[in-house]
Amino acid sequence: MYPKTIRKLIEIFSKFPGIGQKTATRFVFYLLKQKKEDIEEFSKFLKDLKEKVKFCKFCFKPFEGEKQLCEICQNPARDLTKICVVEKEQDLEAIENAQIFNGLYFVLGGPISSISKEELEKLRVKELFERIKSPEKFGVFGNFKEIILALNPTVTGEAISIYLEKKLKKLGKKITRLGKGLPSGGELEYADEETLKSAFEGRR
Amino acid sequence: MYPKTIRKLIEIFSKFPGIGQKTATRFVFYLLKQKKEDIEEFSKFLKDLKEKVKFCKFCFKPFEGEKQLCEICQNPARDLTKICVVEKEQDLEAIENAQIFNGLYFVLGGPISSISKEELEKLRVKELFERIKSPEKFGVFGNFKEIILALNPTVTGEAISIYLEKKLKKLGKKITRLGKGLPSGGELEYADEETLKSAFEGRR
Repeated sequence: MYPKTIRKLIEIFSKFPGIGQKTATRFVFYLLKQKKEDIEEFSKFLKDLKEKVKFCKFCFKPFEGEKQLCEICQNPARDLTKICVVEKEQDLEAIENAQIFNGLYFVLGGPISSISKEELEKLRVKELFERIKSPEKFGVFGNFKEIILALNPTVTGEAISIYLEKKLKKLGKKITRLGKGLPSGGELEYADEETLKSAFEGRR
Repeated sequence: MYPKTIRKLIEIFSKFPGIGQKTATRFVFYLLKQKKEDIEEFSKFLKDLKEKVKFCKFCFKPFEGEKQLCEICQNPARDLTKICVVEKEQDLEAIENAQIFNGLYFVLGGPISSISKEELEKLRVKELFERIKSPEKFGVFGNFKEIILALNPTVTGEAISIYLEKKLKKLGKKITRLGKGLPSGGELEYADEETLKSAFEGRR
């Protein structure tokens, strides 16, 4: 039997997304072969993850610093008439890297496994409404005219879009969705910049 | 751009065996969603890995405790006339779990990518010789009559076995190799207990 520390770490890695017992074991033996300083650094960054990284008060993007708003929500050069709703942080990052959108974001949360009432409650729908209606309450002096629903073009993503569109209609804002270019069944996170660009341009 | 701590952790996870940038990013966001106590525990076990886990003075198996020898090398009930040479800790663990061998082990190290002189030097060949010739120098009062070369039945593993067999011949001990039952090109770590058992029984 492996010593306790190794067993515990195998157990922890086994819970990582997509990782089984065997891969978890490989990870631990890989780490066991690394230099002590590297493991200490890894250990430190892990602690920092919960101590230094916080979530933007407005958009829920993770960031570091003293402020309450992330660097995007704080940036006076951003277009405060547009808000782009994404499922997760990686999607926001993919859009930012493509440099095709200059508005603000909102991280809805997820992924959720279905669109049951219970699963939908895991999404930040109430928070989204509050931020669109009264952004100033959250430190952002925006006046959103367009809400871009940039959810993944999957069955669940499409269903969330329809659900949100229905609810958001009451606010009397222009609601658009990413269109042309995104391959059906794919994941936004993996789209190349050209695909993202045409999806932004072809929004409907 | 992701905050520094997230970027650093993505970089660290990207170096894990078989893990690319995207999976590394998923790991970090998975961790970001875990409870603070769980991350602190993870961080602690990582530090323990380099602080508490040590390698047996005789066989190089990882273990925890005050002693210099692991629980197998310390066990008076083990057969001190047989030594089983494995490539890595996981292989030793697989054999132990199958409960088919009662001798001692020796972890040779690896895996190595080829049998070039440079790669072969990464293996503990000198250490193996020292332990077979004078086990008492390392705290084990054994008298090995049989050396079982339990390397993976891969091209590299077979080549290492031939290389070791040649060198070990001088010592005048019986040298056996795991035989019947192991599928060619497979990995010892993944063999089921029955396969391991017939391989032990059919050693030649």
